[in-house]
Amino acid sequence: MNERVREILGWYGSDNPGTLANLWRLMNTGRLAGTGRFVILPVDQGFEHGPARSFAPNPAGYDPRYHFDLALAAGCNAYAAPLGFLEAGAAEFAGEIPLILKLNNSDTLSGGKDPCPALTGSVDDALRLGASAIGFTIYPGSAARNEMYQEIRDLASEAKRKGLAVVVWSYPRGSVLSKEGETAIDVVAYAAQIACQLGAHIVKVKPPSAHIEQDAARKVYEKERIPIGTLAERVRHVVQSSFNGRRIVIFSGGESKDTASILDEVRAIHDGGGFGSIIGRNSFQRPRAEALAFLRQVMDIYAGKK
Amino acid sequence: MNERVREILGWYGSDNPGTLANLWRLMNTGRLAGTGRFVILPVDQGFEHGPARSFAPNPAGYDPRYHFDLALAAGCNAYAAPLGFLEAGAAEFAGEIPLILKLNNSDTLSGGKDPCPALTGSVDDALRLGASAIGFTIYPGSAARNEMYQEIRDLASEAKRKGLAVVVWSYPRGSVLSKEGETAIDVVAYAAQIACQLGAHIVKVKPPSAHIEQDAARKVYEKERIPIGTLAERVRHVVQSSFNGRRIVIFSGGESKDTASILDEVRAIHDGGGFGSIIGRNSFQRPRAEALAFLRQVMDIYAGKK
Amino acid sequence: MNERVREILGWYGSDNPGTLANLWRLMNTGRLAGTGRFVILPVDQGFEHGPARSFAPNPAGYDPRYHFDLALAAGCNAYAAPLGFLEAGAAEFAGEIPLILKLNNSDTLSGGKDPCPALTGSVDDALRLGASAIGFTIYPGSAARNEMYQEIRDLASEAKRKGLAVVVWSYPRGSVLSKEGETAIDVVAYAAQIACQLGAHIVKVKPPSAHIEQDAARKVYEKERIPIGTLAERVRHVVQSSFNGRRIVIFSGGESKDTASILDEVRAIHDGGGFGSIIGRNSFQRPRAEALAFLRQVMDIYAGKK
Amino acid sequence: MNERVREILGWYGSDNPGTLANLWRLMNTGRLAGTGRFVILPVDQGFEHGPARSFAPNPAGYDPRYHFDLALAAGCNAYAAPLGFLEAGAAEFAGEIPLILKLNNSDTLSGGKDPCPALTGSVDDALRLGASAIGFTIYPGSAARNEMYQEIRDLASEAKRKGLAVVVWSYPRGSVLSKEGETAIDVVAYAAQIACQLGAHIVKVKPPSAHIEQDAARKVYEKERIPIGTLAERVRHVVQSSFNGRRIVIFSGGESKDTASILDEVRAIHDGGGFGSIIGRNSFQRPRAEALAFLRQVMDIYAGKK
Amino acid sequence: MNERVREILGWYGSDNPGTLANLWRLMNTGRLAGTGRFVILPVDQGFEHGPARSFAPNPAGYDPRYHFDLALAAGCNAYAAPLGFLEAGAAEFAGEIPLILKLNNSDTLSGGKDPCPALTGSVDDALRLGASAIGFTIYPGSAARNEMYQEIRDLASEAKRKGLAVVVWSYPRGSVLSKEGETAIDVVAYAAQIACQLGAHIVKVKPPSAHIEQDAARKVYEKERIPIGTLAERVRHVVQSSFNGRRIVIFSGGESKDTASILDEVRAIHDGGGFGSIIGRNSFQRPRAEALAFLRQVMDIYAGKK
Repeated sequence: MNERVREILGWYGSDNPGTLANLWRLMNTGRLAGTGRFVILPVDQGFEHGPARSFAPNPAGYDPRYHFDLALAAGCNAYAAPLGFLEAGAAEFAGEIPLILKLNNSDTLSGGKDPCPALTGSVDDALRLGASAIGFTIYPGSAARNEMYQEIRDLASEAKRKGLAVVVWSYPRGSVLSKEGETAIDVVAYAAQIACQLGAHIVKVKPPSAHIEQDAARKVYEKERIPIGTLAERVRHVVQSSFNGRRIVIFSGGESKDTASILDEVRAIHDGGGFGSIIGRNSFQRPRAEALAFLRQVMDIYAGKK
Repeated sequence: MNERVREILGWYGSDNPGTLANLWRLMNTGRLAGTGRFVILPVDQGFEHGPARSFAPNPAGYDPRYHFDLALAAGCNAYAAPLGFLEAGAAEFAGEIPLILKLNNSDTLSGGKDPCPALTGSVDDALRLGASAIGFTIYPGSAARNEMYQEIRDLASEAKRKGLAVVVWSYPRGSVLSKEGETAIDVVAYAAQIACQLGAHIVKVKPPSAHIEQDAARKVYEKERIPIGTLAERVRHVVQSSFNGRRIVIFSGGESKDTASILDEVRAIHDGGGFGSIIGRNSFQRPRAEALAFLRQVMDIYAGKK
Repeated sequence: MNERVREILGWYGSDNPGTLANLWRLMNTGRLAGTGRFVILPVDQGFEHGPARSFAPNPAGYDPRYHFDLALAAGCNAYAAPLGFLEAGAAEFAGEIPLILKLNNSDTLSGGKDPCPALTGSVDDALRLGASAIGFTIYPGSAARNEMYQEIRDLASEAKRKGLAVVVWSYPRGSVLSKEGETAIDVVAYAAQIACQLGAHIVKVKPPSAHIEQDAARKVYEKERIPIGTLAERVRHVVQSSFNGRRIVIFSGGESKDTASILDEVRAIHDGGGFGSIIGRNSFQRPRAEALAFLRQVMDIYAGKK
Repeated sequence: MNERVREILGWYGSDNPGTLANLWRLMNTGRLAGTGRFVILPVDQGFEHGPARSFAPNPAGYDPRYHFDLALAAGCNAYAAPLGFLEAGAAEFAGEIPLILKLNNSDTLSGGKDPCPALTGSVDDALRLGASAIGFTIYPGSAARNEMYQEIRDLASEAKRKGLAVVVWSYPRGSVLSKEGETAIDVVAYAAQIACQLGAHIVKVKPPSAHIEQDAARKVYEKERIPIGTLAERVRHVVQSSFNGRRIVIFSGGESKDTASILDEVRAIHDGGGFGSIIGRNSFQRPRAEALAFLRQVMDIYAGKK
Repeated sequence: MNERVREILGWYGSDNPGTLANLWRLMNTGRLAGTGRFVILPVDQGFEHGPARSFAPNPAGYDPRYHFDLALAAGCNAYAAPLGFLEAGAAEFAGEIPLILKLNNSDTLSGGKDPCPALTGSVDDALRLGASAIGFTIYPGSAARNEMYQEIRDLASEAKRKGLAVVVWSYPRGSVLSKEGETAIDVVAYAAQIACQLGAHIVKVKPPSAHIEQDAARKVYEKERIPIGTLAERVRHVVQSSFNGRRIVIFSGGESKDTASILDEVRAIHDGGGFGSIIGRNSFQRPRAEALAFLRQVMDIYAGKK
């Protein structure tokens, strides 16, 4: 199975061995080790949505150590969180599971139609906490996007020099986009492409809908008859849009929903050639035993067992 | 009693021994030494509200040495102030009481609905003045919040490297919040969470009211039946929102009021598991003897004597 | 033939031997080696227009390696692209063909009449990827032009210190310009001059129309009877406007069109003394064999064979 | 078994989670994963003794990849080598096995009785190559020892800040020591102590003989009746001399010798509480199959299987 | 009693409040808190003399935590040690007792008549470990003394800027001095003066003998009839030589000897106005209970109780 890992590492020929080793680590941890597939636990909702909205459904999650343990017990590839959450458990769980330090975050106390996250961590923080990668959110479509692109340019360059991997959350958002447009297939594929062009090793996007937002794009989708009827087809298009599948693209779970519909979504991601899922609320807002069973099902799909 | 101090230090496993020693110092000073509880004297009102509004009620407070002496005589854990006030007494009182250098401050000569404090001190100032911690104010909700978050990111990282502790004043404020919303339970809990995620060792918030500001939050509070009826319950929720009680959260006294109502508030903070109070105007605006008696009463509550 | 190359290098007397060597490399690669003429393949449309609009017509282009190979097989002087595309092939094709790293890019998810590209790469990225030059887009006419001019000031200065060449895409755009004005002869000539004054070694502009945008300019064009009737004359005027032909000026192909009209355009550029073409969509959106045949025709014109 | 790993990590309370994670990695790799025991493959003899003396006995070893593969196939905890050897395989074997970058090395073309190795790598090299630790040789007893101590002071401080572990080879050598004295029990124990005091996480020394070199030491060994009759006793004394066993001490294999005598030595190291062996020439100078069988025997002893 | 502490702090008017606070801390810790007297536990003998010579008499001392605990239990003012020993306990004992990080150390594997210690720690190490002071050894009389003086010039300047105190061990040694001369009254007084002139806050010297080493000095001692007949007189002369008593001078215990003779020495130091003792081997080489009893006797003398 490590052949697949080696194949994937082969796509990152410009990176130094330190970064490759951290990508290797992300791919050789947990129940999906060696498959080139990913299930990552992200917990930045405390910052992004507030504590009660995030943790009241399963109060064990107020404790930062809970999420390290959950990711570990579930066999995730990695655990991603902001500075404070990682600082509160990185020593206790040192080495047990690859960490991704989110370097920027948005809160929802203040809003705005063209958001820009705040920088909340540094590459050197990632080194001292033993993280394997930095995480960074961009909002393509926001009037403030240039600021984000320039920040990730600098942070990614520093991270690569210091042997870390770069994970980019690419979430279209901004006053020029309709709400529906944020997950439109043309927009999500574009967002994935932008993240790749910015130098991301791993890109995270939302599962795309069949909606097309941009007129200029619609002409091409229609003319070239790009298949986007099913989620699997749309995932395939997003993967193709990510350097023809030569960058790792994973998909977020979004708001908590019922298990069956998530598993359907995961099957479609798997069928479309997606590399995996990053599942936050649907994991940590369930009771631990239920979350573990649920994540096992997700991983079984990616492992081709179901 | 030092068992409790050691237990608390155990929550900060990512920190170096220098920072741990300064946290130890804050917890082993004054009448509450060894209890893991805090009463801190902050005097930044000269900067924030102007001298007459701050010191005319008790003119002794115009003299910077007065506050060192008051904190010391009262048996506070620490004294917090801006650069100038600390410079004016730090040599004379060197070593007598842990100092917290406030690194940013706002004046009220100029206003605005989305405030951002000015940087008024540095980590190296804290070292040369012998402070144990830096203090920093963030205004979650302000349109300028990103600037503050990025400043504390850099200052906290430097402070931790140099062995200092980090105290964050987290005061929701901004054009998107109603006046009532600034102390709403959902907003205060969120503000505490943000400070923790930004890497604060000690968080200071205002005592929360039962008001809920955000619709998205209200649904959760109602659905999960989070108890917020009494101040003690609300304090408990804020403490839980601070990494499940694994970060030190203290509460401000707010505007000066009558002694009885403050002591009631302190009792509720104590009952709710809050770690202590930071009491400025209610201390230094009273005559010295009265202030000492008052602070003794507050400390007795935290010490479990009343 | 190297006499011509030496002559051209003689125009850049302020540059250090490292930069001269990279200019030499650009002029001594491919089918036009030694002629002082250029055909460059640029592929930044994935970032600028989105993946489907760029690559669906010829899906092989989703793969970043395709473009390295195309430029190489066609005998181009260089291949220009943003960070991600170069990172995805620079090791595999190391040394095979000179690279130009585009340091800024715009996406079209968000718009505005006065655009400013985001910084997406650095001079140090160019060094580590083995690029011969940096590429940078300015929008003269945009209200945000000063920001771009200052960025290229800094980046060009750094690139020259580190021995790289500087290629400036100069595209007039902004709320003060009519759509027609963006390619007006006075405006294009002015844009070329600005790029030269900013220190570009190589300037890229669009083929100019006979329209004159600015009243103040029109008076002079009429009074001095500057010949602008044919494209060749207009090209000659642009070349003259680029330090009397002592800076390399190349012309973009623009939107994809039929082969015959492009070849006519190329002949005019050649006749007018233009140094070459930079042809993106008209190359990579055709099937590979067709693209190679087409580029061969273009090069033959510049080589004086047709 | 991870209890033992956690116990050992507990000895390094001043270190950040990054360094702890790398120590964890060293202890959770290979056949001895989780035991707190180590077998490390070091190959710096090419630099230290020249290629023919090092690799002619088993010419496969001329190839840098051979040693990565050997360490991996044998189930070693880590592979240690100078810059060039690591550069020549770190990408191909990225992630497969923890690496230790030797930051200084001596050649034997030039000699001298008071040697000082040259600095041949940096902490940033270790990061870009994905190493888990830096390695550094000191020669206590050399007239040039101060230079080495000051170098490791700076390098260890930087490595710890950047989340790496520090391995110190402590080899007494110098004009004041007799040849026999270099492995004298008093001198080896002293050398281990010095490495610990310099901040090493892992110390490597040679197996000590029963010889006592220093008169001042002899008095104490005799007076306190320190048992040094057997190798196991001497190992125990060295471990005790390494912060009472709270630092990891491993032992080198020295010159190649017959298998039986090495295994006897390993048994004594194990019985004396040593943490493991670092075995170079006795591994890579044998044919691969023989080396693997040999290392398996060594590991079985440390695993308590024999 | 704090009056005495304030008086002593008054001698250091050039120092910033950070350094004063650390001096205050050294003077307000342990059984002699507030007296202006000092008993400090130094344990650098592991580095200076080797582990067996240092710890075999009381093997508990091999464990670095033993000395933190001993200093604490005995009520010492501070514990001084090299980097490794402090790293191995600084987190566990964070805050409990002021630490002095020895920044240079000599081993006795290699000798020489004109020794120079190696730099083994930095001021930033002191900050991250939470130390109150740096310690540094100079050997006045050594041919290498200039190197040491210049090192302490730089380190002391940095330590003072960062709020730390500076303790200088001043031990005359070198080829120009007779063995007897190393403790001669003229030489010790001179060594104390040099340390003060180099900017030390606290100076440590050996108890001086009545021997006079330098002819030029002898003439003055005789002419001016400087009383040096008793140890108390000689201590008084050394204190006078340390800026007329306006610098803290403490005396080392030297080799382990019988309790009575040490206590006599301590009485003489106390009678002569010495500020205290720094007692290593005589403390940690005794069984714990005995050491505690012994140190209590020493402290009682300094406290004026005996």
